[in-house]
Amino acid sequence: MIATMRPDATLKEIADTVRAIEAFGARTIITRLEERTLIGIISKGAKIPVDLIREMQGIESVETSDEPFQLVSRQFHPRNTIIRIGKSKVGDGGLAIIAGPCSVESKDQILTTARYCAVAEVTLLRGGAFKPRSSPYSFQGLGEEGLRLLAEAGKDVGLPVITEVLTPETVELTTEYADVLQIGARSMQNFKLLEAVGQCGRPVLLKRGMHATIEEFLLAAEYIYTYGNKEIILCERGIRTFERYTRNTLDISAVPVLKQLSHLPVFVDPSHAAGRRELILPLSKAAIAAGADGLMIETHPDPDEALSDGSQSLPPEQFSEAIGDIRRFFQAVCGNEK
Amino acid sequence: MIATMRPDATLKEIADTVRAIEAFGARTIITRLEERTLIGIISKGAKIPVDLIREMQGIESVETSDEPFQLVSRQFHPRNTIIRIGKSKVGDGGLAIIAGPCSVESKDQILTTARYCAVAEVTLLRGGAFKPRSSPYSFQGLGEEGLRLLAEAGKDVGLPVITEVLTPETVELTTEYADVLQIGARSMQNFKLLEAVGQCGRPVLLKRGMHATIEEFLLAAEYIYTYGNKEIILCERGIRTFERYTRNTLDISAVPVLKQLSHLPVFVDPSHAAGRRELILPLSKAAIAAGADGLMIETHPDPDEALSDGSQSLPPEQFSEAIGDIRRFFQAVCGNEK
Amino acid sequence: MIATMRPDATLKEIADTVRAIEAFGARTIITRLEERTLIGIISKGAKIPVDLIREMQGIESVETSDEPFQLVSRQFHPRNTIIRIGKSKVGDGGLAIIAGPCSVESKDQILTTARYCAVAEVTLLRGGAFKPRSSPYSFQGLGEEGLRLLAEAGKDVGLPVITEVLTPETVELTTEYADVLQIGARSMQNFKLLEAVGQCGRPVLLKRGMHATIEEFLLAAEYIYTYGNKEIILCERGIRTFERYTRNTLDISAVPVLKQLSHLPVFVDPSHAAGRRELILPLSKAAIAAGADGLMIETHPDPDEALSDGSQSLPPEQFSEAIGDIRRFFQAVCGNEK
Amino acid sequence: MIATMRPDATLKEIADTVRAIEAFGARTIITRLEERTLIGIISKGAKIPVDLIREMQGIESVETSDEPFQLVSRQFHPRNTIIRIGKSKVGDGGLAIIAGPCSVESKDQILTTARYCAVAEVTLLRGGAFKPRSSPYSFQGLGEEGLRLLAEAGKDVGLPVITEVLTPETVELTTEYADVLQIGARSMQNFKLLEAVGQCGRPVLLKRGMHATIEEFLLAAEYIYTYGNKEIILCERGIRTFERYTRNTLDISAVPVLKQLSHLPVFVDPSHAAGRRELILPLSKAAIAAGADGLMIETHPDPDEALSDGSQSLPPEQFSEAIGDIRRFFQAVCGNEK
Repeated sequence: MIATMRPDATLKEIADTVRAIEAFGARTIITRLEERTLIGIISKGAKIPVDLIREMQGIESVETSDEPFQLVSRQFHPRNTIIRIGKSKVGDGGLAIIAGPCSVESKDQILTTARYCAVAEVTLLRGGAFKPRSSPYSFQGLGEEGLRLLAEAGKDVGLPVITEVLTPETVELTTEYADVLQIGARSMQNFKLLEAVGQCGRPVLLKRGMHATIEEFLLAAEYIYTYGNKEIILCERGIRTFERYTRNTLDISAVPVLKQLSHLPVFVDPSHAAGRRELILPLSKAAIAAGADGLMIETHPDPDEALSDGSQSLPPEQFSEAIGDIRRFFQAVCGNEK
Repeated sequence: MIATMRPDATLKEIADTVRAIEAFGARTIITRLEERTLIGIISKGAKIPVDLIREMQGIESVETSDEPFQLVSRQFHPRNTIIRIGKSKVGDGGLAIIAGPCSVESKDQILTTARYCAVAEVTLLRGGAFKPRSSPYSFQGLGEEGLRLLAEAGKDVGLPVITEVLTPETVELTTEYADVLQIGARSMQNFKLLEAVGQCGRPVLLKRGMHATIEEFLLAAEYIYTYGNKEIILCERGIRTFERYTRNTLDISAVPVLKQLSHLPVFVDPSHAAGRRELILPLSKAAIAAGADGLMIETHPDPDEALSDGSQSLPPEQFSEAIGDIRRFFQAVCGNEK
Repeated sequence: MIATMRPDATLKEIADTVRAIEAFGARTIITRLEERTLIGIISKGAKIPVDLIREMQGIESVETSDEPFQLVSRQFHPRNTIIRIGKSKVGDGGLAIIAGPCSVESKDQILTTARYCAVAEVTLLRGGAFKPRSSPYSFQGLGEEGLRLLAEAGKDVGLPVITEVLTPETVELTTEYADVLQIGARSMQNFKLLEAVGQCGRPVLLKRGMHATIEEFLLAAEYIYTYGNKEIILCERGIRTFERYTRNTLDISAVPVLKQLSHLPVFVDPSHAAGRRELILPLSKAAIAAGADGLMIETHPDPDEALSDGSQSLPPEQFSEAIGDIRRFFQAVCGNEK
Repeated sequence: MIATMRPDATLKEIADTVRAIEAFGARTIITRLEERTLIGIISKGAKIPVDLIREMQGIESVETSDEPFQLVSRQFHPRNTIIRIGKSKVGDGGLAIIAGPCSVESKDQILTTARYCAVAEVTLLRGGAFKPRSSPYSFQGLGEEGLRLLAEAGKDVGLPVITEVLTPETVELTTEYADVLQIGARSMQNFKLLEAVGQCGRPVLLKRGMHATIEEFLLAAEYIYTYGNKEIILCERGIRTFERYTRNTLDISAVPVLKQLSHLPVFVDPSHAAGRRELILPLSKAAIAAGADGLMIETHPDPDEALSDGSQSLPPEQFSEAIGDIRRFFQAVCGNEK
């Protein structure tokens, strides 16, 4: 449910409306959209007397949408959300590139990567410190030490950094080191974690679960939004199907569909989708062609020695070449590369 | 990697072996299997000098399996794991039945349910206090109040209770109220949560993720096991496919496959698998026929008024009838019902 | 659309109605249901003036269902369809068993199999003569020679036989040799073939496509029915999912769903569903428990030497044991084995 | 198995080799690759004495690949297959566009469509005469009348035409009217039909089954190839997954994978993949970006009145605009549009 205030509504009228709604047991979230203030109403089962709210001072309308998601929908907020990260903007029509290794493995490894990523002028440096691995016997990441090494490497080369959070209680720690927090595919429906990053004060990149419908994906974003965080990047990374040649099946249609349904920026991760290095370039181009705002690409100084996901990581030279190709492609197609 | 001690190994020899392994950076987990002691070695990437371990006093053999899961595999532990819950045993050839509502909604609702469940002599009373819901606008459960009401209802009618945990930090709280902890399908790869219930001192019912392969399912159980908790119930609850008539597709083959690959008890949840009340009885019988050790069935005093999952819950009378049918079926087929 | 004649409608009134309907460009199919005659109307886009038909002599009612399938639905025909095959009946509450090799390979092979199948008192002997194989390099069956060998083996031991047809033009040839015709999973939407077996004068076993929804499956049966063949057996044989441990995922829920939606008998093929010999017995029991009218089981005198599907075929001794187990299970559960 | 003749092999040596191979019960297919002649050997289970063949006059090598597909693989034939259709070439680095309605419905409808398709300079005009429909109650196409209308419309505007064949016995009839034959997704494993179009003397567009793996798709093409038809276009049209927002899930990765594994041209059908008109343009661009050689797009003079697939067809104006956009995109990206 969304209440729209009149353009001339006073601050007092807005505050009174919020207080009235919350008195009925709902949470609210306020958005400024051009000349109007919108109040998102998260009732969580509480019964809100819509007619009473409609009659309050300064109210223009109260809409009860039948779409399952509301705050992240384009109906609610027709213009693209633009997110500022470091000196860059995401979602403004340019092409953002996140790059880095699957896991931070050592000071040397992440610094080397950071350096050639900086030369390639990527937007964000990625690197996992807490790794969600199917097997308890696999390398689980360096933990806080990994966060520290990532942050140092970023600072060293002047790049903001992104890393995955796995639990609500490490969100605060992670915000001390990272500029953007990532929610992995396996955590997309970890609702307590969504709640926590909804309050973290940092942009969040939310990956689609490998089993999640587009509706569930947007509802996961809605969770984050309802807790006050409006800086959410949606990231398609492949869904699980019967096809075995690729690790997952990149759902390329999700890109235009998400752009149509939501105002949030949409990224694509071709590395996880395909699980094969040689498909990163064609899938990156396809993502741009389909309207993606950004890409997330894995690279490693020495993929054959990587502790995780080596087969889908580009080695430095191939990476630089691919980034060049991708930028030229974007330039040719969109003509206004940043 | 699993080290097997000789039948005549002394306690000191066992302790020395454990200490040596841990000195190399691995964790260990000790299991007593008939006359031998087995030491599970969880290296997490640490390099263990197998040859040195093999030459220690009291060692019979060190096996490095190429199966991705080890401690939960039948190779490691050929006999069925039997778990004691209240006065019942699970996995001993009998049929366990977990029943109750999707969510605890009120004192009256859970107590009413507990009473007719007790009359039907179910093994465990279920009821959700923390509900993982796709939408932030759906009822999210009563929280700790729900735990309290569930525990009281269970005590009142003399039934042990099971409830879902969503986050590592609520595991301790939940163990104060519940006899068995449940990991839901959406949390099956929430590895920090698996770690937490691995140390909780209560049996755990682990649901298969709707997108998880059998191998990933067993690896999730392996996570719990490696943290010291050997009382794990595996629960098949349907996977996500293209078929739309049922909510999910019950993977009935998973029952004999899991029984063959692992020593852990295997349950089936026909309510979530089908999402349709009228399929609970035939799918329960199919589960028993396929070798399941137990069933998890949703029931509600008034399904049409349920705050969640009403369409897959049985109302009291149908429930009692179904349980009667199921027990007669089990008796006819297995002939040794508890 | 279905027109129901009054119990006292004369033959002339029925004939007049049929002629009137066909004059509008529709096909009709007549069914006798207890004391009434039903006329199924297959309009194929032709516009039928329902009001005019309703006013004809002898008409009781004309129903326009919104279910996509009509003639095969239980609404149309509430009682189970019972099909007579040789001396047996299918769909009458008993358990039918179809058994035999994937392919007819030689006179000796099929005769040996026929003999131990006859001893096990199966209902039908199966054997493929025209094999649909993914690769052009695989064994494609013996063709008409295979049909002849199968028919001879059946005659020799007194068993009716079933075999797959691949093309409309071989339907007639196949009816000369086989008692029941099989439509394979890959042909479920070969509509010209459905049309052909709809006119073949033999019962048809229709396998569900590995990608087909339950609705599409019933629509394929509807195709056959609308061409005049009412003796259709539905056979669930596993759908394609991401799970890789089994060849396909047996959709056990399809059994009660199909029994509920349709009056046709429902079989299960555990051999193709699992692709693993050791799962045939538990899945057969699960199928019976879920309400299946019959089973289709692959057996081969020497599975390791089979030209196709050896790993999912039971060798003779295991087969005899399994059939014994299955019959005892059916007896215990249904208590009225034939 | 593939035998490669030496560059200086005489015609007699080639003929002798072929005769020798066929004497052992295999079929052969001869391909000229630059200066060498290759003999594909389709043994169908026959045992070929490789060592004897290797010693024949003019033989350079005999390779027994372990890939399941051979003749369609790039290993066998490293250069792209280029197919001439009318005045156009397919697979030569340009962009081919197939356009037209799902079904031929009337002379007026197909002629109107043909005219604006000709103005848009498409490569091929499509239109279904025999329609494979899930329901027997749906419009099944105009049959031979549809073929005639399509051929006339094509002739009228100077466009070659493509249409689907459903049965082996209509292949000959269809070649009288159509320049290219289409195998639909539901027929991809109709092996007798593949055999028939393998001998039809016309290029064939083969659609991927909605359940088919990439390997099975290439094996279906291999069937056609082994019967002598080397002019095969592969067409990805979406696979069936759990996602319900789109009709199917376009497997965009299949494009670069197929280009890498095979020498055959690869097309994409965004209309069937998405089932939504508004996704045709972004998915067409994504297909080009991923390396597709052509597109198949549905258009209808009046989609709301279409007898099939209206919601995924573009009306004339939108179609013309989309084709313009697509060509500009291709020009920007590939720079050598035809």
